Amino acid sequence: MLSSAVEALVERMLQGNQGALARLITLVESDAPETPFVLARLYGRLGHAYSVGVTGPPGAGKSTLVDQLAGRLRQRGLSVGIVAVDPTSPFSGGSVLGDRIRMQRHYLDEGVFIRSMATRGSQGGLPITAQAVVHLLDAFGKDLILIETVGVGQTELDIMGTADTVVVVLVPEAGDTIQTMKAGLLEIADILVVNKADRDGARSLQHELENMLHLAPRKEWWEVPVLLTVAHRDEGVAELLEAVGKHRAACAGSGERERRLRRRRRQELLQSVEQRLKVRLLELVEHDHSLSGALAEVEEGRLDPYSAARAILADRALLHKWFAELEQVG
Amino acid sequence: MLSSAVEALVERMLQGNQGALARLITLVESDAPETPFVLARLYGRLGHAYSVGVTGPPGAGKSTLVDQLAGRLRQRGLSVGIVAVDPTSPFSGGSVLGDRIRMQRHYLDEGVFIRSMATRGSQGGLPITAQAVVHLLDAFGKDLILIETVGVGQTELDIMGTADTVVVVLVPEAGDTIQTMKAGLLEIADILVVNKADRDGARSLQHELENMLHLAPRKEWWEVPVLLTVAHRDEGVAELLEAVGKHRAACAGSGERERRLRRRRRQELLQSVEQRLKVRLLELVEHDHSLSGALAEVEEGRLDPYSAARAILADRALLHKWFAELEQVG
Repeated sequence: MLSSAVEALVERMLQGNQGALARLITLVESDAPETPFVLARLYGRLGHAYSVGVTGPPGAGKSTLVDQLAGRLRQRGLSVGIVAVDPTSPFSGGSVLGDRIRMQRHYLDEGVFIRSMATRGSQGGLPITAQAVVHLLDAFGKDLILIETVGVGQTELDIMGTADTVVVVLVPEAGDTIQTMKAGLLEIADILVVNKADRDGARSLQHELENMLHLAPRKEWWEVPVLLTVAHRDEGVAELLEAVGKHRAACAGSGERERRLRRRRRQELLQSVEQRLKVRLLELVEHDHSLSGALAEVEEGRLDPYSAARAILADRALLHKWFAELEQVG
Repeated sequence: MLSSAVEALVERMLQGNQGALARLITLVESDAPETPFVLARLYGRLGHAYSVGVTGPPGAGKSTLVDQLAGRLRQRGLSVGIVAVDPTSPFSGGSVLGDRIRMQRHYLDEGVFIRSMATRGSQGGLPITAQAVVHLLDAFGKDLILIETVGVGQTELDIMGTADTVVVVLVPEAGDTIQTMKAGLLEIADILVVNKADRDGARSLQHELENMLHLAPRKEWWEVPVLLTVAHRDEGVAELLEAVGKHRAACAGSGERERRLRRRRRQELLQSVEQRLKVRLLELVEHDHSLSGALAEVEEGRLDPYSAARAILADRALLHKWFAELEQVG
């Protein structure tokens, strides 16, 4: 159940209080037990916002592009949320870069809400947490939500699965096209962008990508465009926004929007179950004697982890405790 | 329990049969129910192999470097296993690049066993699967295991957690150092390599990295070196191997090896429990009426995923079925 304090936060957030929004995001990020209740409470309010994922290798200029997109959306009177998922900076221990650098531009604009999420310490629940933050921004009333990830790993691909339109950003010097193929990025792209297009090799990368796309299985309802941008000079950004609009219309007209929604909801359910089991497992490891005993044996190499896992899942008393607690909380 | 067919495979593998090794890897990759039994069976045989993780952004030349390392290790009479985790090629549907390109060099050498693992379809269990493949290669008797990942995402960082020594490979044109910081790569590096060091900017990147390392909290037992290599000309590769040897000795002498082992074993236990719960959940979703009913309601937007997850975890009959089956299998 929602405590009255959290209920009050939700109310204030729904009335447009940004501080309440920020605190709810923190609550969701910290895997607080109230999280599913907050999301269940807001679920009926979702569906207004449109989300655009922006991903690509480090150094492709994604942050600059996201900032320019936000600027143009603001010019059109639309409100914007930005969720930036940064692998944690190694020495600061925090995900500081995104916020600091960005805030300089949008600091005084109430219509832009920016939130960086660090990957450190996330126990594999990052995609579902990102999805929850997007839901909060949606319920808050944002028109457009820009989700940015750095990196080309599986987690980042999963996060992109939460976006309505996925933009993959590359740069001319990204190296052989074979490398972008390997990175698995092309497969998830609804729109491809060659950024820093004032540099050598931009047009040839564009053609190469177009040729690769022709080899891919064709979708009847959408042909992935390859656009050129120079984000820091705001070139090509209007065309990119136009392409996003076209993709949105194509998804709506072809039933793709509904398919993506279904897939996403299914993922949310499964990940939510998994996440709760996992959190509870980690709690038990900390506090339950029978489990911490097995763990110590495994750590010392006296018991193999696989037999230990089997024993844990065959321990009815332990499972009973595990789930009794889950029921109490939720 | 192990079926007699799998038991026979394990026996043949332990006698040095590469075909049996390959089939066991396939079994482990496919999350077969026998997997934990196979690993439990082999657990007493582990600990001979030393594993080196090699990671970095796409295009850094990691594959070439790994090949050269393998070549030099072979010259010293050591046997080598290579595990390459490739994000799946988008159009082929398989992780083909690694194997094909590499096999050209080591095809006829029985002393090198190469295996590419695709990330597609992996349900977040990739780090534990990679760890299991490393265990198989270790039990098979490999002296050195090279683990290569492409990408800078969370999954890739987790996979590097399974290696005894982690080598992070960068290139002069990797872009601003701030980008490598963001990528979270420096934090996990035991050894840093600036590859393609014949290009402009190699030395200045080396100095920049050294300066950044000086800002990091110092370890008494190890100072992270920043080496220069030109992998395709085999330059600096001997020095890299030497650094790996020094790191190995430093870990053994300082208690770090034991600390890493304990952390890894703990991760293996927790991930093994989670993985089995997850696999079972997906089976139930496919086959159990009460669950697939809830799923359909969620997919259609009539029930929010978080309330559904709560209901599932409060359903005693369902949980009973869930765990009864787990016990039977294992």
